[in-house]
Amino acid sequence: MRIALAQINPIVGDLRGNANKILAFCQKAYARAADLVVFPELSLVGYPPHDLLEHSTFVEAEARARTALARKIPRALGLIVGGLAANTHRPGKPLHNAAFLYEGGQLLGSAHKALLPTYDVFDERRHFEPGARRAVVRWRGRALGLHICEDLWNTKPSTHTYYNANPVAELAADGADLFVNICASPFAVGKRTSREALIAHSVRRHGIPYVFVNQVGANTELIFDGSSCVYSASGQPLLHMNGFEESLALWDSEAPASSVAVPSENATGSLHDALVLGIRDYFHKTGAFSKAVIGLSGGIDSAVTCALAACALGPDSVVGVSMPSKYSSAGSVRDAQALAEALGIPLTTIPIKSLVRAYDDVLAESFADTVPGVAEENIQARARGTLLMALSNKFNYLLLSTGNKSEMSVGYATLYGDMNGGLCVLGDVLKGQVYRLAHYINRAGCIIPESTLTKPPSAELRPDQTDQDSLPPYDVLDEILRRYIEEQEDLRQITATTGFDRALVARTLQQVDRSEYKRRQAAPCLRVTPKAFGEGRRLPVVMRWQHASDSSRQ
Amino acid sequence: MRIALAQINPIVGDLRGNANKILAFCQKAYARAADLVVFPELSLVGYPPHDLLEHSTFVEAEARARTALARKIPRALGLIVGGLAANTHRPGKPLHNAAFLYEGGQLLGSAHKALLPTYDVFDERRHFEPGARRAVVRWRGRALGLHICEDLWNTKPSTHTYYNANPVAELAADGADLFVNICASPFAVGKRTSREALIAHSVRRHGIPYVFVNQVGANTELIFDGSSCVYSASGQPLLHMNGFEESLALWDSEAPASSVAVPSENATGSLHDALVLGIRDYFHKTGAFSKAVIGLSGGIDSAVTCALAACALGPDSVVGVSMPSKYSSAGSVRDAQALAEALGIPLTTIPIKSLVRAYDDVLAESFADTVPGVAEENIQARARGTLLMALSNKFNYLLLSTGNKSEMSVGYATLYGDMNGGLCVLGDVLKGQVYRLAHYINRAGCIIPESTLTKPPSAELRPDQTDQDSLPPYDVLDEILRRYIEEQEDLRQITATTGFDRALVARTLQQVDRSEYKRRQAAPCLRVTPKAFGEGRRLPVVMRWQHASDSSRQ
Repeated sequence: MRIALAQINPIVGDLRGNANKILAFCQKAYARAADLVVFPELSLVGYPPHDLLEHSTFVEAEARARTALARKIPRALGLIVGGLAANTHRPGKPLHNAAFLYEGGQLLGSAHKALLPTYDVFDERRHFEPGARRAVVRWRGRALGLHICEDLWNTKPSTHTYYNANPVAELAADGADLFVNICASPFAVGKRTSREALIAHSVRRHGIPYVFVNQVGANTELIFDGSSCVYSASGQPLLHMNGFEESLALWDSEAPASSVAVPSENATGSLHDALVLGIRDYFHKTGAFSKAVIGLSGGIDSAVTCALAACALGPDSVVGVSMPSKYSSAGSVRDAQALAEALGIPLTTIPIKSLVRAYDDVLAESFADTVPGVAEENIQARARGTLLMALSNKFNYLLLSTGNKSEMSVGYATLYGDMNGGLCVLGDVLKGQVYRLAHYINRAGCIIPESTLTKPPSAELRPDQTDQDSLPPYDVLDEILRRYIEEQEDLRQITATTGFDRALVARTLQQVDRSEYKRRQAAPCLRVTPKAFGEGRRLPVVMRWQHASDSSRQ
Repeated sequence: MRIALAQINPIVGDLRGNANKILAFCQKAYARAADLVVFPELSLVGYPPHDLLEHSTFVEAEARARTALARKIPRALGLIVGGLAANTHRPGKPLHNAAFLYEGGQLLGSAHKALLPTYDVFDERRHFEPGARRAVVRWRGRALGLHICEDLWNTKPSTHTYYNANPVAELAADGADLFVNICASPFAVGKRTSREALIAHSVRRHGIPYVFVNQVGANTELIFDGSSCVYSASGQPLLHMNGFEESLALWDSEAPASSVAVPSENATGSLHDALVLGIRDYFHKTGAFSKAVIGLSGGIDSAVTCALAACALGPDSVVGVSMPSKYSSAGSVRDAQALAEALGIPLTTIPIKSLVRAYDDVLAESFADTVPGVAEENIQARARGTLLMALSNKFNYLLLSTGNKSEMSVGYATLYGDMNGGLCVLGDVLKGQVYRLAHYINRAGCIIPESTLTKPPSAELRPDQTDQDSLPPYDVLDEILRRYIEEQEDLRQITATTGFDRALVARTLQQVDRSEYKRRQAAPCLRVTPKAFGEGRRLPVVMRWQHASDSSRQ
């Protein structure tokens, strides 16, 4: 059987556009003599649809569009698509997350997702009822073990312990001779490797080959890498599709099996490609913007954001803005210019001195007899944020915000100032990774100026300021943050493992907790780790638990 | 049996503070000769804890604090508290949402919540495993039918169809002679009435009296009204506690039953009280602020927000700021002054003309040959937002944002401008309700000036502007929004039911969808309807479904 893996990039909710895309892929697959073409989870809907699923009109339209699509494709081609199935055994949630097999316009079989991820960014229990039973779908002499994404994850070496059912094992017991997983598994650095370890374990355990088709593309915060693949019954990779791009690949189950080399995951390279895809899809899928605009301070975060944007959209679609204040060093302004030249983007310069003076003047009476401090520093950041939004409003620019995860964690960012933007590119990238990204961007020649890479990081909001006046060294900070945010470790665990100073760790955790109110109002940030700020990390703004204190005294 | 209902206002995560509060209530109950005292759901944790539950240190600390608490209370007093129970039958989620009965420091019985709300603002499937079986807890000759909040909701007249189990019926079948529900049921206008209809239905069906203890107080977006009560076996209310305040009440199950009058719910009055509590608790529970600050435009939204804040915090803790531009009418400035005088709060005036001119100057080159429009209008809003944040940063003021739900719905608000603030007071209140609130505030005399109530609403960002230049009349707009947002109706349903112009409805729904990116960055807003913006309404920012178009063409 010739099976086409259709790694498509859908737009959430665009039933018509996605159906047209699926139809075009079906025609390509048929032209290449495929018997069966397989699309990712919720193929016409796009993942994640969130509360669109609560609108009955949307749910009904999906069913109509899917049925119409199945009638349009070549009659001899089998089609596996993801979609919405009504839960006919109420009570329970109204929908199942389903996979459907069509041929000649007829529905021949289906499967309902059994393991519904409800953690981190996933809310599937909010809308879906788990599938009750697993059975193979028999078609053209094969017994297809059809299942969906998370259904794979109750298998070693996964550490998930949420689920009683193991759909893969149940399908094997029902006589499956080919596993087919349709998926929308979001990217995180290292995720592809763990996913494939699960697949390899499953095929070896059951002796059944495995076809895995994953969504590609970014939808708001989530980036999907694709990296669809086929594994043989003995655990050898037979097909491996490129990450971060739409494509169609063909696998012939009757052809002599020959193992392919799976490129090992380059952490910084895949991070780079994921962020580029994240910017590109946000820009094009919203379709609301003429260009992207970025405030260039001469620092590393804005330089990396700008280089990623130029790579994603092309230099003609990116505009840099330099907004020097009286605290901006000549070097910073030069670095911003050098970056813009290296990228081939225009740089507009708008000095903010007169603006800051105007604020000082109107606030003089209110601020009389006070000592200059954070209020004055933030005025500079907010004047810049207002200028960037003025350009955004006037010219339909997408403003990209440039804060990194280390800063966002501890609140070292100005709300309504440098946090302004439609998308935060580096919000899930720790400072150390930002430097690695910068070196990766410079791999074929200098784009980000050397001095941007070597000077001490500074917000330049007061004379001679550096980040390390307020923060621990970034390698220490990043390690604390990774353990606290991604591993949910506490003060005791972090100090015990790292040997870092207890007071320093405590102060850092407290800063993270106290900055929750800022992050609640941050732009969506592209998720590239297992635990990003945003949809996947839900904490009360008003709360009084102190992770930083000795828990026995609280 | 003398049962004390302890309607407490906990702070999320404040294990020590909440335990001290519970202990004090226990002592009061004991002094009043109670046999048993009952606290709300997750008593020591506070509701909702969200992902605090993912920190093992927190979970362990809760168990320690609860055990220690049980040992400290009078030995003869029974104690029912909500807390976290480990799920000892893994796989599954690690925790149960539990009710515990203690006496003399010993744990005598418990119940695990069976119906786990996972919709709207609720994420209980994210952290909890449903309780597997229901059994009464026998104590001092009674068979207590202990259950938790949502466990009541699989009963008529509820329309929830999510659940297979019916804990109330199962406990009745197991011989319960007294239902005890510990709860954290968030306020919405009309919710108390529907809750009590469920209770009355349950007691009549099973012939068993019902003790209902609900959390009171606000935690970030959610407001809990309390309104704890006791119903007799025949469905008569025997006890009814005031909403929106902490208190302790006693009910003697052996005393002759006498029905009490339950005050009918005054929609505007309860809305007012809920918002006042929401402001007060946000302010005091964060403990970070000296005063609240509000930009007073002379319009109705800022006037109502300011009056609510003065009621919540006292006039000495509220500061008004008037920031007239060249488009501000003399009447608006007068109205802001009159309001401040009526409330007895100080009013600072900071004209923004020079600031707007400074922005115009630095942007002159970039904006050359363009027509003034939204970009210029937003600069005014952002200059004001920056001034308010400067005062907030300098003096530790809590900035309250003043946008109402009608504006937030259609995006008639400036991101990083008038949307600035730590808490959005009216973000779940439609414009028509804002007027009703204003009249309620004026019920005992004029606080909000007559002209604020009668003049046409205007953002005053360009000459002679009124809201109705851009928006339909507010009574029409509000009806469309209520049906779309709260009822999930679509274009076809709304036009069929209301007879409103199809193009008008379509344009409104499209405005709602296109403003999602603004709301994603909005301040938390106090939830007072069944569907507020924020945690309970999750929609993709990047998506292409058009609720406003004919679905058959998408």
